[in-house]
Amino acid sequence: MDDFDAALARAASATGQALDMLLPAARDPESRLFDAMRYAAMGGGKRLRPFLVLNSAALFDVNTDCALRVAAAVECVHSYSLAHDDLPCMDDDDLRRGKPSTHRQFDEATAVLAGDGLLSLAFEILAGVETHEDPNVRCELVRGLAVASGPHGMVGGQMLDLQAEHETLSAPAITRLQQLKTGALIAFASEAGAILGRASPSCRHALHAYAHDFGLAFQITDDLLDIESNDETLGKSAGKDQAAGKSTLVSLLGVDRARLQAKILSEQAVKHLDLFDEKADLLRAAALYAIDRRA
Amino acid sequence: MDDFDAALARAASATGQALDMLLPAARDPESRLFDAMRYAAMGGGKRLRPFLVLNSAALFDVNTDCALRVAAAVECVHSYSLAHDDLPCMDDDDLRRGKPSTHRQFDEATAVLAGDGLLSLAFEILAGVETHEDPNVRCELVRGLAVASGPHGMVGGQMLDLQAEHETLSAPAITRLQQLKTGALIAFASEAGAILGRASPSCRHALHAYAHDFGLAFQITDDLLDIESNDETLGKSAGKDQAAGKSTLVSLLGVDRARLQAKILSEQAVKHLDLFDEKADLLRAAALYAIDRRA
Repeated sequence: MDDFDAALARAASATGQALDMLLPAARDPESRLFDAMRYAAMGGGKRLRPFLVLNSAALFDVNTDCALRVAAAVECVHSYSLAHDDLPCMDDDDLRRGKPSTHRQFDEATAVLAGDGLLSLAFEILAGVETHEDPNVRCELVRGLAVASGPHGMVGGQMLDLQAEHETLSAPAITRLQQLKTGALIAFASEAGAILGRASPSCRHALHAYAHDFGLAFQITDDLLDIESNDETLGKSAGKDQAAGKSTLVSLLGVDRARLQAKILSEQAVKHLDLFDEKADLLRAAALYAIDRRA
Repeated sequence: MDDFDAALARAASATGQALDMLLPAARDPESRLFDAMRYAAMGGGKRLRPFLVLNSAALFDVNTDCALRVAAAVECVHSYSLAHDDLPCMDDDDLRRGKPSTHRQFDEATAVLAGDGLLSLAFEILAGVETHEDPNVRCELVRGLAVASGPHGMVGGQMLDLQAEHETLSAPAITRLQQLKTGALIAFASEAGAILGRASPSCRHALHAYAHDFGLAFQITDDLLDIESNDETLGKSAGKDQAAGKSTLVSLLGVDRARLQAKILSEQAVKHLDLFDEKADLLRAAALYAIDRRA
């Protein structure tokens, strides 16, 4: 796991540098917007999605600078979703990544605009010629990220998540919610390397299947951490799901069965990588990390 | 002007049909999100930006179905910006296009998500192979729309607009604000036809210059309407700028000089179209409409 931790830290650092270049501070009168975008996007976080982009790209010997642009774009989308989800009218969270959430640090209007700006920036980055020489690849990346982040992906999942506070969901309904809310973007991050590398359909399929199981295992562990941690170790508000009476697989199955379910999913995720050699070892380690991590 | 009115109505109707197909109602549990997206995007409006896309595309004999997809994408972005700008934490508007604004019809969280979903959808549409056979054209459209709608465009302008409630701006500062807030997307709409038609740089430049002056004239007229109309005729809240003490060119120059300024800009806009023949007559008429329209 030491290799994995080091690789995760490397990916986080490289993505941070890429974001710093792609999203420089501004001196214009609207600098407050750029400050808020940088605050939302560069304020730490594990950078798991960039890790997945970079390590799926490494399977196909993709140029690192290209992969880093895609990693940064995916992180822009993830960061925008956190800034919007934390708003008072949504999940109303004061704490994110161990710091005040974007609307607490700035104000609500600025947090909405910072999120909007990050989402547009993500597509600007992907469509840029520096992302890949082949415009078909760039279009495929734009389309993939747009679907993963839009109403048939992350935004649809957040809609379901808000509704889940008022109703009890079945296990399949919770699984679908989580596939949309977090799974779709994780799946795109894992597939992005294959798109960049113009990989074979079987390779793409394997990475998609890996990400599917990985994402679900990751989410169950998130839900476990939510009830087992406190704010300080978690870096965001803990115990919120329970307090809101929100249906999760943990509330439905209980802690032990949920933990077992996450373990099975993590092992399945690793299995999907069988067609790759040891180059995929860091992705294998990520699947174990998904269920072993502490806050 | 009759021809122009008819052309504007035709563009509005065709764009509405395109949006209806690109954004069908859903039966999934998250159908509320799709309902809100359709409400925000399909609730009327003049459809001026789609008109500009369709009529700039017509200059270069672009396939109508392709142009309609771009028109729909631009309208998705415009509609998302209205849904977010109307939020209580932003301009706090209850009325839009003669109906309750999206957050009043649904709720704040749903309005945020509907806006987010429309922005992602716009890029999904542009990157789709049906938009243009040449992926370079699709990438250029994605990049152009992302820049126009992002922090160096519309979102940056809205940030300035919020700040303008607390300070008195100079005429150049107001002009810059308006170029970002509404001018950038209008410029993209006008240039989009040239991108689709792989037009010469001089044609693109002419359309950009046209849109620049058109957009400023349009905005001055908007500000004049804001102080001269009531809610009912305007279809949105009237008198808001004045009540908020917001700096506009009208508050700075007075009604008569502002009206003259708009007229000069509109004439300049028409002049930029001199290299086009009578095919550009509807765009010429639009520039007159920009200053002659009533609410």
